[in-house]
Amino acid sequence: MLASQTNLAWHTLLDLEADGPLVTRVEQGLRRAVRSGEVPEGTMLPPSRRMAETLGVSRWVVTQVYEQLVAEGVLEARVGAGTRVARTRPPSSPGGERELAGPVPPLPRRPSYDLRPGVADLRHVPREAWTRAMRDALAKATNDDFATAPAAGHPATRTAVADHLREARMVDAPAAAVVITRGATDAMGRVGAALRAAGHTHLLVEDPCWPMLRDVAQRAGLTPVPVPVDDAGIDVGALVRSAEATGARAAVVTPAHQFPLGVPLAGERREALLAWAREADGIVIEDDYDAEFRYDRRPVAALQRLDPGRVLLLGSTSKTMSPAFGIGWMVAPASWRESLTASAGEAPSVLAQLAMTEMLTSGAYDRHLRAARLRYRRRHDTVVAAIETCLPTATMSGLAAGLHLVLELGPESPDAADVVRAAAELDVGITDMRRYEAAPSASSRRLVLGYGNLADGRLPDAVALLAACARARG
Amino acid sequence: MLASQTNLAWHTLLDLEADGPLVTRVEQGLRRAVRSGEVPEGTMLPPSRRMAETLGVSRWVVTQVYEQLVAEGVLEARVGAGTRVARTRPPSSPGGERELAGPVPPLPRRPSYDLRPGVADLRHVPREAWTRAMRDALAKATNDDFATAPAAGHPATRTAVADHLREARMVDAPAAAVVITRGATDAMGRVGAALRAAGHTHLLVEDPCWPMLRDVAQRAGLTPVPVPVDDAGIDVGALVRSAEATGARAAVVTPAHQFPLGVPLAGERREALLAWAREADGIVIEDDYDAEFRYDRRPVAALQRLDPGRVLLLGSTSKTMSPAFGIGWMVAPASWRESLTASAGEAPSVLAQLAMTEMLTSGAYDRHLRAARLRYRRRHDTVVAAIETCLPTATMSGLAAGLHLVLELGPESPDAADVVRAAAELDVGITDMRRYEAAPSASSRRLVLGYGNLADGRLPDAVALLAACARARG
Repeated sequence: MLASQTNLAWHTLLDLEADGPLVTRVEQGLRRAVRSGEVPEGTMLPPSRRMAETLGVSRWVVTQVYEQLVAEGVLEARVGAGTRVARTRPPSSPGGERELAGPVPPLPRRPSYDLRPGVADLRHVPREAWTRAMRDALAKATNDDFATAPAAGHPATRTAVADHLREARMVDAPAAAVVITRGATDAMGRVGAALRAAGHTHLLVEDPCWPMLRDVAQRAGLTPVPVPVDDAGIDVGALVRSAEATGARAAVVTPAHQFPLGVPLAGERREALLAWAREADGIVIEDDYDAEFRYDRRPVAALQRLDPGRVLLLGSTSKTMSPAFGIGWMVAPASWRESLTASAGEAPSVLAQLAMTEMLTSGAYDRHLRAARLRYRRRHDTVVAAIETCLPTATMSGLAAGLHLVLELGPESPDAADVVRAAAELDVGITDMRRYEAAPSASSRRLVLGYGNLADGRLPDAVALLAACARARG
Repeated sequence: MLASQTNLAWHTLLDLEADGPLVTRVEQGLRRAVRSGEVPEGTMLPPSRRMAETLGVSRWVVTQVYEQLVAEGVLEARVGAGTRVARTRPPSSPGGERELAGPVPPLPRRPSYDLRPGVADLRHVPREAWTRAMRDALAKATNDDFATAPAAGHPATRTAVADHLREARMVDAPAAAVVITRGATDAMGRVGAALRAAGHTHLLVEDPCWPMLRDVAQRAGLTPVPVPVDDAGIDVGALVRSAEATGARAAVVTPAHQFPLGVPLAGERREALLAWAREADGIVIEDDYDAEFRYDRRPVAALQRLDPGRVLLLGSTSKTMSPAFGIGWMVAPASWRESLTASAGEAPSVLAQLAMTEMLTSGAYDRHLRAARLRYRRRHDTVVAAIETCLPTATMSGLAAGLHLVLELGPESPDAADVVRAAAELDVGITDMRRYEAAPSASSRRLVLGYGNLADGRLPDAVALLAACARARG
């Protein structure tokens, strides 16, 4: 059943009053009219000469429009049968056109008093330094730099990162051992896939731990095996027993500053862990997530340097700058490097790599680290003092390092879960230690408090509000 | 067997003449001396007081150094037994320390006459525009923008890309349907994983085709099923038969400009392809890789708009700018979106997203596209004219579009493989069509010639050298 072309007020329908070239206006008008149903499916269009007269445009305009829309499948042209509107397509069930609508969800809201761990100081990301670094990188880049970079990263970036890690983390590795990543999540995804490809089925993880790397490894097909952590870091004796029980030959650890307990891995355990790795033909993944920030002494050197053939170090800028920069690195034993760089699509953008290279070679990154360390150190000391005042029965643990501390509330306090809930109502974000435990304790008063993203001006209020929640019963 | 501490000339070994704080100098000297073997494993160190006297430094310096190195596992301290150098670790076999050495391989060299397809004009990437975009993005960003962005991308970027695609590609999709990617490889990796998770086992691909997306899908576990392409695009009849034979319900196509044949998908085949997808409950992946560049008319609208519930569009800036920017997009039916954004680690860096948002909203991206289109159009015309002159018996095919054309050499020419080899010796890079064929022809004179990255000044020489190779026999 074809609608009659002559019943349609083409001139009105196509609304030629808009701006832009005439062909575009006619074409967009016709497309819109078809789409809205004003010109129904199957409608025969007037021959181009007649349509041109109706619209008061040249015939060339109309033939251009018809050809374009035929090429797109909006119209159909049959020899000897003129041009008509193609049959419309029923919107497909699941995944249909209807479902496409809906607004983009905005960025998640952060609490006014953000005491959640794992967030860097978003007020002090090096905006100007990165702008300069990007400008200089773009000015210096050769044309060939703009092609796809090798999967392991741009050679200049690998060299700059190797130099930085030698200085800052005493990492013992040439540039060829460095793989540039988009951050620790990206890195762990690749490590997980490489472990699976090498026949690994299990991954030893610290308990408690930051769940992200564990979850990424799990998505890659590895079964996590929790190993307890005490005040000297991961319990290597327990690790060896778990490894024997499960056949696990890979472990992820945080030797510089355990998350969340905040302790460093003791020297003798470092040796014992590596002895296990050699014995088991295993691999230790060193998550060096916030080693740059130690306030009482210089950071302990990376575990990696003790056995570069058995330790795969993961580092990133997500804690030192912010995750928005999307750049990190691995230092990988030679035997793992190939499987960690299987796809060039994994590398961060070459521009981010070249800007990071500028940050490193110009000294801007070091200057940023020093300024950040000073800020965090001051904030750490202020938080500690505020807690001592407002929460005198609480105990704090963990090094003077990183961006978080562990707070054990006094025996008069409600359970940590109740404190977290009450705090949320006052727009204070803080985390129950159980969130990081493999088998969460039935009752606990331990909180993990991050001060990375806590605005200094809100610090007294944040701790006072937290203290009120910790005093409140039930 | 312990070396006697007193035999060691500590002052010389530790070389305190370097710059920097005394603690650092002593520590680095001792670490180096242990590492080099000058102070062998097991060596007892002098008590801190004696060492301080020997070196002429304060005892505090020495205790600091000893503590640091014990914490790192370089030294061992036992109560009542003093401090000694820890047992050194035998470098582990496969992946041992030895293997770590070796220089970083430099970037791959490009031919002087680069006629290989798939490379954009690296001499004209928008360096200044991106510098400005990054500067403005960093100046405008809120603090919260620097946190981890949602896996689907930053809301502002999704909105800007949706607006751009509506204008440029007549894509019919709200911002919520847009997923920001790092480019087509990233996108196809996610699509492949999502298809596998939804039970797909096969993927229909064009034959010939650009192998990258096919290979990425294959790595994700999908078996590619080649479907022939003729001068109206993919043969939909053959596609339907292959789909029935294999159970394949997903196809990757290049409707705007088939790679490598250079033809658009005909209007009636567009409808037929979508009819198959609806019938089979399938999905069509539209690789919109170079649709921005058409020189004879405006680009044909994306296939996506004909059925947004059945078409998943992939776009990127790797051909419009360069792969170095690391940014692209998908427009995905609602039912696929969740599985395409499983991991936040997949998204490109927020800074790249915000800079791209600036490029789009400021009009800089459109300006760049217009300038690039003009340059490529001129180069296309010049290449065509040069080929007509130098290779009069060759025939060219493909639209006046994109960055490549197909060149069929005359019957007097050697086989394409011989031409490619001879060209390589003259530092001319060009590609044999067989590289893109599922079952490469036994004999072929077809070359795929890319002019994207061909310097205009080298154009006459490039074509003349190619012609010489095509004339040379055996």
